[in-house]
Amino acid sequence: MASATGAVPLARKPRSVDLTQVSVWDNGKVVRKEDYLAAEEPLEIRVGAKPLSVTMRTPGHDRELAAGFLFTEGLVRGRSQIISLEENQGDAETNRANVVRAELAPEAAPDFEKMQRHFFAASSCGICGKASIDSVRARTLKTPNPDFRFESKTLLQLPNALRESQAVFGRTGGLHAAALFDKAGKLLVLREDIGRHNAVDKVIGWALLEDRLPLATTVLLVSGRGGFEIVQKAIVAGLPIVASVSAPSSLAVQLARELGLTLIGFLREKRFVVYSGEERIKKD
Amino acid sequence: MASATGAVPLARKPRSVDLTQVSVWDNGKVVRKEDYLAAEEPLEIRVGAKPLSVTMRTPGHDRELAAGFLFTEGLVRGRSQIISLEENQGDAETNRANVVRAELAPEAAPDFEKMQRHFFAASSCGICGKASIDSVRARTLKTPNPDFRFESKTLLQLPNALRESQAVFGRTGGLHAAALFDKAGKLLVLREDIGRHNAVDKVIGWALLEDRLPLATTVLLVSGRGGFEIVQKAIVAGLPIVASVSAPSSLAVQLARELGLTLIGFLREKRFVVYSGEERIKKD
Repeated sequence: MASATGAVPLARKPRSVDLTQVSVWDNGKVVRKEDYLAAEEPLEIRVGAKPLSVTMRTPGHDRELAAGFLFTEGLVRGRSQIISLEENQGDAETNRANVVRAELAPEAAPDFEKMQRHFFAASSCGICGKASIDSVRARTLKTPNPDFRFESKTLLQLPNALRESQAVFGRTGGLHAAALFDKAGKLLVLREDIGRHNAVDKVIGWALLEDRLPLATTVLLVSGRGGFEIVQKAIVAGLPIVASVSAPSSLAVQLARELGLTLIGFLREKRFVVYSGEERIKKD
Repeated sequence: MASATGAVPLARKPRSVDLTQVSVWDNGKVVRKEDYLAAEEPLEIRVGAKPLSVTMRTPGHDRELAAGFLFTEGLVRGRSQIISLEENQGDAETNRANVVRAELAPEAAPDFEKMQRHFFAASSCGICGKASIDSVRARTLKTPNPDFRFESKTLLQLPNALRESQAVFGRTGGLHAAALFDKAGKLLVLREDIGRHNAVDKVIGWALLEDRLPLATTVLLVSGRGGFEIVQKAIVAGLPIVASVSAPSSLAVQLARELGLTLIGFLREKRFVVYSGEERIKKD
């Protein structure tokens, strides 16, 4: 059985789901069984030989995650600025497989000196807070596709579509999902991750690598809360609508209103709440 | 009504909950109403005049958050190393009120040069990943209170106690809760935040400021998922048991097993899953 001293270490090889021994205490009875866990491993994103960022993520679709991160954090402005994205196949024991190395076009190469000062001064969470709002504003002032319209009845169908696709991966209960839908409500891509922002980076990275940016006629649905980071990333990707099955934060609503993104919360089977950009939602 | 151009900006004054205009679409009908939002604002933690970290948090209990952050990230080792913690009462318009300034004892003063290199090289999420596991290991190798025992029937009562206390704050649906319980299952403190790790920093910061550390006979319950960061912070605070109503991650389980913390997941009314340190749980 699993002891407190680590007698049963988990496999170190990166994968999305780990199997481990647990004890289930149910109505006074104790049953030992194997159970699935959402995997969480650090991923280091490097530009050339230099480490740029480490994020705790669920392994899988790591190139998409790196591409999405590089794009939504403003390091690259398009597919053509990424020359290559290489997953390190190294030593699993020391987590060295948890590396994606990007070669960027010369004009996209980050100013490490400047970023170092910025990262340190501004944030313990990558790029966030006031510095981040300012940086989003500086990069894109235009409202994502102001002419886009979306049927309310299609919107109401999205959570079920998400859940049905998620069921395949739904063994652990510990993953957040992000999905892109087209104008007709068709699922384009679904990604899951233990980190909400990583799931979003993965779907945006997918779109970048598939040359589908900007996502001007697409809806982003997230399984969790619609926080500031999600709205920020969506705006950079040109997404006109972000919907969440849960609550948004005040700063997410503020940013969505200032930059003209449609933000939907509490999207359920018959009901949703519009926090911003209601003009894009069409009545039946 | 709320327009996409930000005609109705949210109040900028830091507070836990914001009230804003929304549209509720319910079964084809649209109703405009005022609704509560979980507030999300950046908090800058300074040591002396230098910025150390910015975290996106729900305003309230900011001194506790700063104290908990300084402690769980290893910058201070106890109450006595914090000379003062001062909330900036400045200009709300520019978010300048979102600052806590710490004066630390000389021996606790951070090596900014060294941290800058570490932050940049290791992480976009504060301190995480392999560097973080190593840093936790380097700081505390001892298992939190190996002699502590906790009744399984008391454990099963904790989620209800959390929910009852949370109901007071439960208007927004967007907040994570963290709570400390004593050996008899009595609630000691409950804090909420839009960030899971912030809620944990707040309760640990509360304990630090109340001179209750280490929390050797206390249980930490979190409303969300038991991730790596939560386990890491709990171990630093000497907490023997961490329980969550949702799933833990693989890295959280790995760290709990290696360092001898009892990790409980899926804690519901009659059932829970033990991922690590089962010897601390007593049958009825």
